Amino acid sequence: MQRVYLDNNATTIVDPRVKEAMEIYFCQQYGNPNSLHQFGTEVHPAMRVALDRLYAGIGAADEDDVIVTSCATESNNTVLKAVYWEVISKTNKKRILTTPVEHPSVSHVCEFLAENGAEIIELPLNKYGIVDLSTLKEYLDPEKTALVSIMWANNETGIIFPIKELAAYARSQGVLFHTDAVQAIGKIPVNAREVGVDYLSFSAHKFHGPKGVGGLYIRQGAPFVPLLHGGEHMGGKRSGTINVAGMVGMGLALELANYALEYEATEVRRLRDKLEDAILAIPDTLVIGKRELRVPNTILASFRGVEGEALIWDLNKQGIAASTGSACASESLEPNPVMVAIGVDRELAHTAVRFSLSRFTTEEEIDYTIEVLRASVKRLREISSTYKKC
Amino acid sequence: MQRVYLDNNATTIVDPRVKEAMEIYFCQQYGNPNSLHQFGTEVHPAMRVALDRLYAGIGAADEDDVIVTSCATESNNTVLKAVYWEVISKTNKKRILTTPVEHPSVSHVCEFLAENGAEIIELPLNKYGIVDLSTLKEYLDPEKTALVSIMWANNETGIIFPIKELAAYARSQGVLFHTDAVQAIGKIPVNAREVGVDYLSFSAHKFHGPKGVGGLYIRQGAPFVPLLHGGEHMGGKRSGTINVAGMVGMGLALELANYALEYEATEVRRLRDKLEDAILAIPDTLVIGKRELRVPNTILASFRGVEGEALIWDLNKQGIAASTGSACASESLEPNPVMVAIGVDRELAHTAVRFSLSRFTTEEEIDYTIEVLRASVKRLREISSTYKKC
Ligand SMILES: Cc1ncc(COP(=O)(O)O)c(C=O)c1O
Ligand SMILES: Cc1ncc(COP(=O)(O)O)c(C=O)c1O
Repeated sequence: MQRVYLDNNATTIVDPRVKEAMEIYFCQQYGNPNSLHQFGTEVHPAMRVALDRLYAGIGAADEDDVIVTSCATESNNTVLKAVYWEVISKTNKKRILTTPVEHPSVSHVCEFLAENGAEIIELPLNKYGIVDLSTLKEYLDPEKTALVSIMWANNETGIIFPIKELAAYARSQGVLFHTDAVQAIGKIPVNAREVGVDYLSFSAHKFHGPKGVGGLYIRQGAPFVPLLHGGEHMGGKRSGTINVAGMVGMGLALELANYALEYEATEVRRLRDKLEDAILAIPDTLVIGKRELRVPNTILASFRGVEGEALIWDLNKQGIAASTGSACASESLEPNPVMVAIGVDRELAHTAVRFSLSRFTTEEEIDYTIEVLRASVKRLREISSTYKKC
Repeated sequence: MQRVYLDNNATTIVDPRVKEAMEIYFCQQYGNPNSLHQFGTEVHPAMRVALDRLYAGIGAADEDDVIVTSCATESNNTVLKAVYWEVISKTNKKRILTTPVEHPSVSHVCEFLAENGAEIIELPLNKYGIVDLSTLKEYLDPEKTALVSIMWANNETGIIFPIKELAAYARSQGVLFHTDAVQAIGKIPVNAREVGVDYLSFSAHKFHGPKGVGGLYIRQGAPFVPLLHGGEHMGGKRSGTINVAGMVGMGLALELANYALEYEATEVRRLRDKLEDAILAIPDTLVIGKRELRVPNTILASFRGVEGEALIWDLNKQGIAASTGSACASESLEPNPVMVAIGVDRELAHTAVRFSLSRFTTEEEIDYTIEVLRASVKRLREISSTYKKC
């Protein structure tokens, strides 16, 4: 059976060149980079290359820090809890401003901090599904706000937030700004210094790197306290024996993802648009978010009368992998929070299906998906108890 | 040049069978296990096998939790901070009893918690380098103590702590017990239920698994709060997209390490003893800790008049990797804390060199090391400014 992977916002295939680059760090150059002997030092050049690639890849300045973590969940926890310890627990700035559509690795940390003295404010989204500058201006009280944490691109819809504007305003008010850039990297240009954020999180497996490794950008001078205290790795900012293979893999994956940005903006976008046009050509369908406001690879679509779960299942039987929203939430049956925020009616919100492409997606795969999708939606609507009534 | 790796307490070679088992999870079965489609579900059987191996491998009961983390540093931070949030910050039990020779991923967390209301007490070591039961009895006030955290085996000396006795006493007093078992696993039998601890930490790369993955045992009912909040992976106890390759690798590595325990107790021990005897046959040398009290692979030796760093360097030039102590501390020039605790004089403490073997160490490598070591010590003593004076 043909296998078509259209769930690249959940995770991606490791680029074979990345896997290749990691190979020697398991059974050959397996030393601990902290050791003084040759087994330790022989991995240093590759680590330096990886670090250079990470700095260049996200636009960090030399004086900033880029630390290697185990995933973006760790990076997000690190930032929010660092600000908790360094600002919220010590000063009158108790507030974190965030959005209702952050990934749980931000929103659940906020809930935890709220139990411990932080005040969390979710900024309302406008009708395009973003937080606009006027909203931030309205809500941000610099006397009371420790941090603004807003994702760069949403995992469910692909909608891009105006991070540069928002960060510039927070900065002008002397308020720290964090962005979860997990879904932006490899899809659109991401440059931490250029947009002026204080913290930026990312995860290698979302851009064809390995699982189990992520990163965190920390602007020079931004308040910080480690989440993982210990043996003072990463300049004391993140302890734990360094995952050399993972770090090397992530560095190369980021460089390759940035090389491929042009391809993403043209070819991946073209295939995404082809699929999106075909979806919209089916009657009673809806795609969330304006195309120009989204990353080039993502479609969150609703098919009236068709349960998202049922469609996913039908596609899966025919070898096509899509999602009902973020993989993290896929075991719950809550309506998609982004759609709720945008004001899509509850029934439609339950029918959301996400297709997310990558540079490994082919035209044949998209053509096959279109064909299968048309037939599936037709069939599921025929047996639907609600569709006729709409 | 011959390469001899005798720094297995810092990290180990990945067993080629482990690397082999991980291979398909990069470019073939790369799905996110949380996804509902086949790319997600096809990795579930291997993950279940891995989890079974982890439960069996550390003697967890079905109702306990074993969570996959990114390293033992994360596991140790998780336990200590969970007890901080759940007990220390909420009750009158503010104390953590620990030892002066814990790894920084325990001791530095304790320092951080001490700044935030915890009271840290370092239990004195007896002349064998361990905390004995009478000491714990003397110091443990159940009204005031939240946690006892004592390592199972020390990374520098290999000295084994009497965890079963100590944990049983803490339990009898209603006090939680954590052990950092990083240096015990794969060297001696480790069974969490049998010794009756509440929490137990481990790291795959110390037993021929990959770097970037570790584990944490949590006894049923033990207080817990996640260090990584987020998408509710690992039953909500540790969020972040699961490192499937790492988890599969760690599971197999643990099973293989346990199969090899007999070999460790006989052959690795025999080679270790051979090297140790050869060291002791050199005049004015010392090995820390009684042989019967140590894991079978470790020697911490002192060579009077020879700087540890200088000897490491000399061995390294001849292809032999050893350490001045824990890799984590190897960039500092502090005397080895274990030796200080045991009461070795300061000058000798500066000369400590650690040799740590593994099941991949061969007799030829040990013979070569003995030969090189004898010549190195002789040469370094000839040019030593202190040796003649002793
Ligand atoms: C927007 C966003 N942030 C954070 C994460 C967390 O990434 P990870 O699971 O690699 O920690 C994800 C993916 O799951 C995501 O989509
Ligand atoms: C006793 C002990 N605990 C914890 C650790 C930390 O392990 P990791 O660096 O894999 O987090 C180490 C090794 O460095 C160790 O020897």
